[in-house]
Amino acid sequence: MQLAAIGFDADDTLWHNEPIFAMTEQKFEELLSAYCSAEEIRRRLFEIETRNLHHFGYGVKGFVLSMIETAIELTDGQITGAEIQRLIDLGRHMLESPIELLPHVETVLHSLAVRYPLLLITKGDLLDQESKIARSGLADLFTHIEIVVEKTPDVYAHILAKYDIPPERFLMVGNSLRSDILPVRAIGGLAVHIPYRITWQHELANPDGVTYFKLDHIGELPAFVRRLEREEA
Amino acid sequence: MQLAAIGFDADDTLWHNEPIFAMTEQKFEELLSAYCSAEEIRRRLFEIETRNLHHFGYGVKGFVLSMIETAIELTDGQITGAEIQRLIDLGRHMLESPIELLPHVETVLHSLAVRYPLLLITKGDLLDQESKIARSGLADLFTHIEIVVEKTPDVYAHILAKYDIPPERFLMVGNSLRSDILPVRAIGGLAVHIPYRITWQHELANPDGVTYFKLDHIGELPAFVRRLEREEA
Repeated sequence: MQLAAIGFDADDTLWHNEPIFAMTEQKFEELLSAYCSAEEIRRRLFEIETRNLHHFGYGVKGFVLSMIETAIELTDGQITGAEIQRLIDLGRHMLESPIELLPHVETVLHSLAVRYPLLLITKGDLLDQESKIARSGLADLFTHIEIVVEKTPDVYAHILAKYDIPPERFLMVGNSLRSDILPVRAIGGLAVHIPYRITWQHELANPDGVTYFKLDHIGELPAFVRRLEREEA
Repeated sequence: MQLAAIGFDADDTLWHNEPIFAMTEQKFEELLSAYCSAEEIRRRLFEIETRNLHHFGYGVKGFVLSMIETAIELTDGQITGAEIQRLIDLGRHMLESPIELLPHVETVLHSLAVRYPLLLITKGDLLDQESKIARSGLADLFTHIEIVVEKTPDVYAHILAKYDIPPERFLMVGNSLRSDILPVRAIGGLAVHIPYRITWQHELANPDGVTYFKLDHIGELPAFVRRLEREEA
């Protein structure tokens, strides 16, 4: 079997992302440390983020709005204007953070782009994601770039149909079971899970009975793809 | 000449949008009325919005963050947590506002969709725009839907190339000279301006020497398209 295309997730698959959120969350906990325990802050922030996803979606802006709401609630409205301004500035700082590629990403993408159409499929805020893709210097290696609100089976099916890619000849590579692996397996695609060292609680999933491949890092991908094509030939 | 496709802007071309922002801005001015004049608030909010566009992009979330920053600045940090929560709630309310189509939109789109591929090309926040398109009930009438960060000549050229549409046989319909008319004319496309009764200051533009068509309302579009094809035949 020859793969028709390979899809890549972006955040925490091609470049570091979760540490930027984790670092900001830590500063947020310090800011509120006079009011509550770090554990309570973390728990309540996650609850408010989850509730707000429906309205605000993924990305830095929604995260900042959730931090502000959490801060107002946990301080009983005692948080000052200056402290809230500090939260907005943290968000602006996140949006300006340099893109740090994960090891092997550049050589792996260059070598695979010669043989396969590569798709970048990422969810989140449009401006934020486009800016990160541009700053990554990787944009030209991808035949198609898709920024979506949520990575569901339907969304993947729609993208593959648009580009005439048969699901059974599509391989998706990503760090999130919930967003990159399970929905692709659900529509009959192949998927390789490459875990990142931190996973946002929201992206955890129980892959009960679903089969998929797993690699330690993206440097192993080219050899894996060669093996896959030989074995499924 | 037969048009190859017709493109439509969404906000204030197919449905009312600016009044939701204007109404929210009015509530914002009331909230701050103890601190400054409505005029000063409007001026400073527009300045902060414009500065933030680069980081936060278009859409409700960025607008809310700009209102919060404006409020903190204009009140010298005196604004309370409860008042800031009120600003976030205004944003959530904006995101839940029902979609009100402009007059004639449904019948016009139905009649044109029979003869032409229709494109929806809108800028702004991905989640926000997708949700509005879904709620509008119009999604199925469009062959392609493109949500973009900014409507520049390059962005239009990229979309038309992707779908093999020759610019000279593409007609764009929209209410913003800056986003819908000038960039399309710049790449050799045709454009019809249908002004909306309010225009956000940011979307104003000086069309110096650029030629384009103008209609009073979208109900005039089908007859206009027939005339255009006959005359340019």
